[in-house]
Amino acid sequence: MPDDSITTLVQDVLAGSRRALARLITRVENRTAEAHTALAALYPHTGRAYLVGITGAPGTGKSSVVNALTRTLRASGHTVGIVAVDPTSPFSGGAVLGDRIRMVDLAGDRGVFIRSMANRGSLGGLAVTTGDVVRVLDAAGFDYVLIETVGAGQSEVDIARTAYTTIVVDAPGLGDDVQAIKAGILEIADVLVVNKADRPGVENTVRALRTMLELGHRVRPTLHHGQLAPPTRFAPPEYDFWQVPILKTVATENEGMEALAEAIERHRAHLQESGLMAERARHRAETELIERLREALLVRLLAGRSPDDLEAVVQRVVQRELDPGSAVRELLDGR
Amino acid sequence: MPDDSITTLVQDVLAGSRRALARLITRVENRTAEAHTALAALYPHTGRAYLVGITGAPGTGKSSVVNALTRTLRASGHTVGIVAVDPTSPFSGGAVLGDRIRMVDLAGDRGVFIRSMANRGSLGGLAVTTGDVVRVLDAAGFDYVLIETVGAGQSEVDIARTAYTTIVVDAPGLGDDVQAIKAGILEIADVLVVNKADRPGVENTVRALRTMLELGHRVRPTLHHGQLAPPTRFAPPEYDFWQVPILKTVATENEGMEALAEAIERHRAHLQESGLMAERARHRAETELIERLREALLVRLLAGRSPDDLEAVVQRVVQRELDPGSAVRELLDGR
Repeated sequence: MPDDSITTLVQDVLAGSRRALARLITRVENRTAEAHTALAALYPHTGRAYLVGITGAPGTGKSSVVNALTRTLRASGHTVGIVAVDPTSPFSGGAVLGDRIRMVDLAGDRGVFIRSMANRGSLGGLAVTTGDVVRVLDAAGFDYVLIETVGAGQSEVDIARTAYTTIVVDAPGLGDDVQAIKAGILEIADVLVVNKADRPGVENTVRALRTMLELGHRVRPTLHHGQLAPPTRFAPPEYDFWQVPILKTVATENEGMEALAEAIERHRAHLQESGLMAERARHRAETELIERLREALLVRLLAGRSPDDLEAVVQRVVQRELDPGSAVRELLDGR
Repeated sequence: MPDDSITTLVQDVLAGSRRALARLITRVENRTAEAHTALAALYPHTGRAYLVGITGAPGTGKSSVVNALTRTLRASGHTVGIVAVDPTSPFSGGAVLGDRIRMVDLAGDRGVFIRSMANRGSLGGLAVTTGDVVRVLDAAGFDYVLIETVGAGQSEVDIARTAYTTIVVDAPGLGDDVQAIKAGILEIADVLVVNKADRPGVENTVRALRTMLELGHRVRPTLHHGQLAPPTRFAPPEYDFWQVPILKTVATENEGMEALAEAIERHRAHLQESGLMAERARHRAETELIERLREALLVRLLAGRSPDDLEAVVQRVVQRELDPGSAVRELLDGR
C-alpha cells in the first residue's frame, strides 16, 4: 500500500470515518509497516480520550457493566470506544459471539465503536497492540475509551492498569478460586463495583471487599512497578487520599450506572487536582515503552541469527549439554 | 554465599534433602546469582520427571483434581512434586491459604513436595521462574511434576503447555464467561476432565466439549508457535492421531482418578512411540529460551542506559513529541 493511501486513511480516521477506523485497526492488529506510519501520524492527535479499564473475575457480569455504562455515557452525549480483550481461542468464536451480543444491544449507534481482540500470540504483543488500538480510538475522537479485560492473568491486569481509572467488577456468590483471582486484581481498583447486587449475599461481598481494601491499602505504593522497571520518579503521597468507592449495580437492569459514571468523573477530577493524572500518563508511557522494547529487542536478535544457529543451541539444551541460563548468555554474546 | 555452600546445597538436593530443596527453590524464586550456578549444576540431572500441566477455568475444582491425582500416583509408589501458579496478590494470602489446605490433605507424606508461586512481577519472568522450579524438582528426583495454573491468562496457558501432558479441567454448570475462558484453553488439552461429574448437566458439558474438540481439531497445528517464533522444524503429522479423551471425575470423592492416571500413561506412551516426546522437549526448550532472551535483553538494555536517558524519552512520549514506536527505535539505536 503506497504512502499516500495511508495518509488518506489517517485523514479519514481523523475526519470520523468508521470504515477507515475499522480498516486501520485491522492493520494495527496485523502489525503492518503502514500501521506504524499511521500510528506515528495519529500520535499528536491522541491524549484527549479518557481511558477507563474494566476488569474482574469471570462470572461477575463485567461485559454487562461495560454495556450499561456505555448507554449511560451515551445518554450524557459522550462518544465511547470499547476495546474488549477476550481470552478466546482463534477457533472458538468467543470474541465474535461477544461482539454479536453487543451489536444487538448497541446497534446503529454511531457514537459507539466496539472492537474485540483475541488473546492469542504466545510471544506477547497483546498489550502493545491493545495500546495501539486504544490510541487509534483516542485519535478518532471518542470521549471515552473503555478497555475491558478478563482480569485473571497478569497480562490482562497489566492492560487494565494502563487506564486512568480502573474499575474492578465483583459479584456475590462466586466460587472460592474466583475469590483468589479477585484478590489478585483488587490492588489495581480505583472504583469497585459489586454487580448482580440483586442476588443474595451482596452485603457479605461488600464487607469482604472493604476488609481487603483496608489490608491492601498499606502495601499499595510498592506495587506500582515490576522488579525490572527503572526506579519510580514520583512516589505519589496523595495516592492514598483516594477512597476507593464500592458501588452496587445490577447492570442488566441499568441500576447503579449513574453512580458509576459519577464515580469515574470524581476519580478523574481527583487525578487532575492531585497531579496524579500526569503521573499516570508517565507511568503508562514508561510501561508501554518497556513492553515494546522487550518485543523489539527479541525481533532484532532473532533477525540477526540464522534459524540454524538458534536451533543448534536449542538442540544442545535438549541434549542437556547446556543449561538454559548459559544458553541465553551464549546467544546474547554471540559465539 | 560462597560457592562451596552452593555446591553443598546442590548435593543435598540431589541426595533428597527436603530442607535443601525448599531453600534452593526460594533462591530460584528470588533469582539470585547463586541460584543460577545451582541450576547449571543441576541441569544434567534433569529430564527424568514426567511433567503434567493441569489448568482450567475457575470453579472447576482443579486443585482437588491435583490433590486426588497426587494421592493416586502416590498409591502406585510414585513421588510427586507440585508447582501451583496462583494468580494471587502479594497481600491477599491466597497462595498461602492454598498451601495450607493442601498440607492438611497431603501432610506428612515425604513423597510429595508442594510449592505455590504467586503470579506477581508485572514485567514477566513468572514463566521463566516456574520453569526453573520445575527443573529443580525434576533434578531432585520426583517421578512426576504437576504444574497447576489458572488457565485464564495467556501466560498461564503458556506455562501449562510446557508440560508433556496437559490436562484441562472443566465442570458442569459454570457461567457464560467461564465458558469463553474454557474455549481459549481447550486447544492445549491432551486430556479433558469433566470434574464435579455428580452435578446435573454433566452430559451436556461432555457433549459441548466433544463438539469444540471436533471444531478445534482442524486448526490445531497452526497454534503451536507464536508469530515471533522461528519456523517450526517438525510439523508433526502424527499429532492428530491422539484422540483427546474426555474423562468424568469427582475429585473430592477420589472418583475417576485411576482412569486419569491411566490416560496420562497412555498419552506418555503415545508421545514416546510417535517421536512427539522429543518434539515437545524441543518445543519447550525453544519457548523457554525465547522467554529468557526477552527478559535478558531488556535487563541488559536498561543496565546500559542511565535512568535519566530513559526518563527523557518517556517525557517526550508523554508530551506527544515522539510516538512510542519511534521512541523504541531511538532507544534501540542510541541517540
